[in-house]
Amino acid sequence: MKTIGIIVNNSKPKARTILRELVMLLEERGAKVWVEPEMAIDMDRKDLSLVADQFSTCVELVFVLGGDGTLLGVARQLAGHGIPILGFNLGHLGFLSEAEPDSLSTAVDCVLSGNFYIEERLMLEAEVDRDGTVVEGGIALNDIGIAKGSFSRMIQGKVFLDGAYLGTYSGDGLIVSTPTGSTAYSLSCGGPIVWPSVPCILLTPICPHTLTSRPMVLPADGTLEIKVNTTHQDIALTIDGQQGFALQVDDVIRVRVSSHITSLIKWKERSFFEVVRKKLQGEQEETPRVEG
Amino acid sequence: MKTIGIIVNNSKPKARTILRELVMLLEERGAKVWVEPEMAIDMDRKDLSLVADQFSTCVELVFVLGGDGTLLGVARQLAGHGIPILGFNLGHLGFLSEAEPDSLSTAVDCVLSGNFYIEERLMLEAEVDRDGTVVEGGIALNDIGIAKGSFSRMIQGKVFLDGAYLGTYSGDGLIVSTPTGSTAYSLSCGGPIVWPSVPCILLTPICPHTLTSRPMVLPADGTLEIKVNTTHQDIALTIDGQQGFALQVDDVIRVRVSSHITSLIKWKERSFFEVVRKKLQGEQEETPRVEG
Amino acid sequence: MKTIGIIVNNSKPKARTILRELVMLLEERGAKVWVEPEMAIDMDRKDLSLVADQFSTCVELVFVLGGDGTLLGVARQLAGHGIPILGFNLGHLGFLSEAEPDSLSTAVDCVLSGNFYIEERLMLEAEVDRDGTVVEGGIALNDIGIAKGSFSRMIQGKVFLDGAYLGTYSGDGLIVSTPTGSTAYSLSCGGPIVWPSVPCILLTPICPHTLTSRPMVLPADGTLEIKVNTTHQDIALTIDGQQGFALQVDDVIRVRVSSHITSLIKWKERSFFEVVRKKLQGEQEETPRVEG
Amino acid sequence: MKTIGIIVNNSKPKARTILRELVMLLEERGAKVWVEPEMAIDMDRKDLSLVADQFSTCVELVFVLGGDGTLLGVARQLAGHGIPILGFNLGHLGFLSEAEPDSLSTAVDCVLSGNFYIEERLMLEAEVDRDGTVVEGGIALNDIGIAKGSFSRMIQGKVFLDGAYLGTYSGDGLIVSTPTGSTAYSLSCGGPIVWPSVPCILLTPICPHTLTSRPMVLPADGTLEIKVNTTHQDIALTIDGQQGFALQVDDVIRVRVSSHITSLIKWKERSFFEVVRKKLQGEQEETPRVEG
Repeated sequence: MKTIGIIVNNSKPKARTILRELVMLLEERGAKVWVEPEMAIDMDRKDLSLVADQFSTCVELVFVLGGDGTLLGVARQLAGHGIPILGFNLGHLGFLSEAEPDSLSTAVDCVLSGNFYIEERLMLEAEVDRDGTVVEGGIALNDIGIAKGSFSRMIQGKVFLDGAYLGTYSGDGLIVSTPTGSTAYSLSCGGPIVWPSVPCILLTPICPHTLTSRPMVLPADGTLEIKVNTTHQDIALTIDGQQGFALQVDDVIRVRVSSHITSLIKWKERSFFEVVRKKLQGEQEETPRVEG
Repeated sequence: MKTIGIIVNNSKPKARTILRELVMLLEERGAKVWVEPEMAIDMDRKDLSLVADQFSTCVELVFVLGGDGTLLGVARQLAGHGIPILGFNLGHLGFLSEAEPDSLSTAVDCVLSGNFYIEERLMLEAEVDRDGTVVEGGIALNDIGIAKGSFSRMIQGKVFLDGAYLGTYSGDGLIVSTPTGSTAYSLSCGGPIVWPSVPCILLTPICPHTLTSRPMVLPADGTLEIKVNTTHQDIALTIDGQQGFALQVDDVIRVRVSSHITSLIKWKERSFFEVVRKKLQGEQEETPRVEG
Repeated sequence: MKTIGIIVNNSKPKARTILRELVMLLEERGAKVWVEPEMAIDMDRKDLSLVADQFSTCVELVFVLGGDGTLLGVARQLAGHGIPILGFNLGHLGFLSEAEPDSLSTAVDCVLSGNFYIEERLMLEAEVDRDGTVVEGGIALNDIGIAKGSFSRMIQGKVFLDGAYLGTYSGDGLIVSTPTGSTAYSLSCGGPIVWPSVPCILLTPICPHTLTSRPMVLPADGTLEIKVNTTHQDIALTIDGQQGFALQVDDVIRVRVSSHITSLIKWKERSFFEVVRKKLQGEQEETPRVEG
Repeated sequence: MKTIGIIVNNSKPKARTILRELVMLLEERGAKVWVEPEMAIDMDRKDLSLVADQFSTCVELVFVLGGDGTLLGVARQLAGHGIPILGFNLGHLGFLSEAEPDSLSTAVDCVLSGNFYIEERLMLEAEVDRDGTVVEGGIALNDIGIAKGSFSRMIQGKVFLDGAYLGTYSGDGLIVSTPTGSTAYSLSCGGPIVWPSVPCILLTPICPHTLTSRPMVLPADGTLEIKVNTTHQDIALTIDGQQGFALQVDDVIRVRVSSHITSLIKWKERSFFEVVRKKLQGEQEETPRVEG
């Protein structure tokens, strides 16, 4: 019998309806389900109530009802606990979610019968070193951003890989991204799409001042150090674009691949291909170049 | 009574059917229609037959049934004759065609009642100077391309604006484009979208070797000279991507805004905006960046 | 006899030395010189002291000793007063400064003998409309930026040109730029280089979420309206990257070409060409592509 | 005692002088040297003469006097023979050459004393399948290109990874590149810089018609199949930009990582970093963005 925790982004339309249906399907097939207290009350099923902090010790799998953004937060929370995650996509087409709300029983079948595989995704860990002391830290599934504020002029970052000087980047900032994060903010900044299984770290400058600064694909076993160098104080470190810390001049941000991974539940063949085609390559779209 | 010449790209599906319907609508309302001999035979209406070369002297307006590519060819053919062109879009959504095949009567109404305006589009003229003699020349509505062949290594072009040295471009070639052509090949090479009414010439490098080479928006009254400098002979000048001439080392290609313009018949407000949104900005599309 | 006001960025090395030398040269040739009180004291020449606010009514020409950034501020300050500006470049090679500190007498000769021409540069004016009231306004020589803060997720801007809907941009923000500003922030965001004399406005998205959003070259007589649409409050309007105002959700930013221009004193032929080549095209640089 | 073969690009200035000096240094320290017959005659040392085809069986190391392009050709020739290559850079700064002509004795010392390491570089193998028969094949150190000719309109390629449909690319063509090739043609087409040790294949579209087509970093164990689909016959396959074959419509090009590698002799720490900084990031250059 499987024990499954469900986390819901209840700002998404139909989240509550889908939750009820999913719980029903899972319980019918003998699974044990936990939901967060707020949702348990909402469903009038206090027997299912468990605070999310306990999920990591009490459940075998986690279902996420929301978009890719919700899943990012859950992935960070579960990092290091080895609990596979299944995303149910309640928003736009996503890269991380495998299950569709209109075929819940397919998803439940796959999971309870074991007809799925685990796709392991690299995560990044970052720490902020201020005068020799680590003052902040965090783990990301998508990316670590170092960016200027809206009023600021550009920032400068001196980048080192495994202690060797890589270059100085001036501009709006830098993104250090996993392959998973390559289709997120990095892509908007001109970075390539990286297949989830390629072992690497992606370094993408944000609006670089120097026209020759280009995205770089770096080895997964490297440690990046970025020394922030600006005359103003309006700089932030962001984690998956969801958490942020104020940085100070001369802070050193150290980023490397984490020992923790995110395990995604998948059963479709090549679903990444399809999402790339649909979201990014505009499958079935009109095309711009004029021809005869 | 208006005299209208119709040019048809009969490789397009339904071209013949639409032609028949259009001729019927125009004749019903008293217009005189001419079509090319091949189509006249096809329609069994030899009384409408006129070779396209005669259109420039015998008709007031030209209708083009095809895509933007067909219209480009007609625009070059009619350059200098001051005959407005109306495109009927038989293919993908286009930038140049105003009329839709499913509302032919709207188009006929607008044109015969005079409820339209003329949008003037800049054209470019190019000439190839070989050892002081002009050996080729041409006029373009979209663009003049100077490009290497498939087997070749890169080519170099030394560019002058009004006799002053602008820079040397190495790479796959150069595109000199009108605002109209900004949404064609130049766009694929990283050029900006230029509003049809901005008086300018666009110079876009093709896969430039030097990372700092960028598209340039130049004054419409300038004359560009491009001196081709390569050690191989596999280089071509192309006009609207439809006509081509082999270039030789040390050829000088001179490009300026032509004294001829293309007059497009338009009646929609802001149709350019809509086409840009639909074709280029993926209106109503899914979006790639991951969020919470 | 010419009356010349001099504005100095005294954080630049040698600014004071160059000021003294320049005042000496000008006075030798009979010009009347004014400098800001701080510099007058520094020079022990209180007779030259005039607050900068008075320059617009008391001087015929303004000399700026600093970099392009200093000149931007002076240009905004003098907007509407028709006073030509001559930049003396004390920093990196610049686009706006014509005179070099190592040939001060050439500059003084050109100016006092009238051997120069005026290059007119478009400026932009922006106003922020909040619930029907204009709450802020400003004028820019380079650009008007609308950008998210460092902690923020992306912002959305709905853009209209002369009242017609142009498109919705999601991402880090938008830049509306003059031709002069095309070589500044817009260039870092993928915009083209626009020749100073092309009459146009440049609209460049900053790290756009939608991959098909591209820089646009718009007519100089158009009015852009950008309706900011985000769920957070960390958005700013910036003017030439030097002044900033906090924006609120639903603010409408209106940008058009100003009736004021900046008049730059120039005497070199084609100096823009050379600066583009040196700064942007890496003249005399090594090149990246591998060859045989 | 080491046996060293030397291959010379004698179109490079000083190639002959450097060859003589290098042979002298090597022989002084007891190495056995072979050079190609043409150079042996030129040096009046017929005792050193060996046709390059024999190098793969007779020498332990190969020295290449030329630029990166010369080394590419030697790498393809030696593929599969496990012979390390040392490049002496006679042209522009290169990515592949480790030794400088002005410190020949350092290079000779490193090599003869064994104070060097081998950097292994992935190679690609390509084959052209025409109606089920392999009609061409080749191996590349940089890249496999599939590109249209100068007169042609765009080409279309339908791309599969390990049999699964990846997408259809329209435009000027496609580049499949190794990490080594990421700094060559792919970079001009907007591809990222890939660290030599990241195990991956880079797929970069050339001037893609669809604006959302982006460079992709794919797993090194994948097999790409590209089905060429055009209505014209002016398409070529190129290998390292140096060899070319004419392609036909419906040809399938199969590209995978080769079982052969190129072994480069290196002794500098982090030399790749320095070359990237110097060639691509314009170390010590002026910078374009205007500031105060």
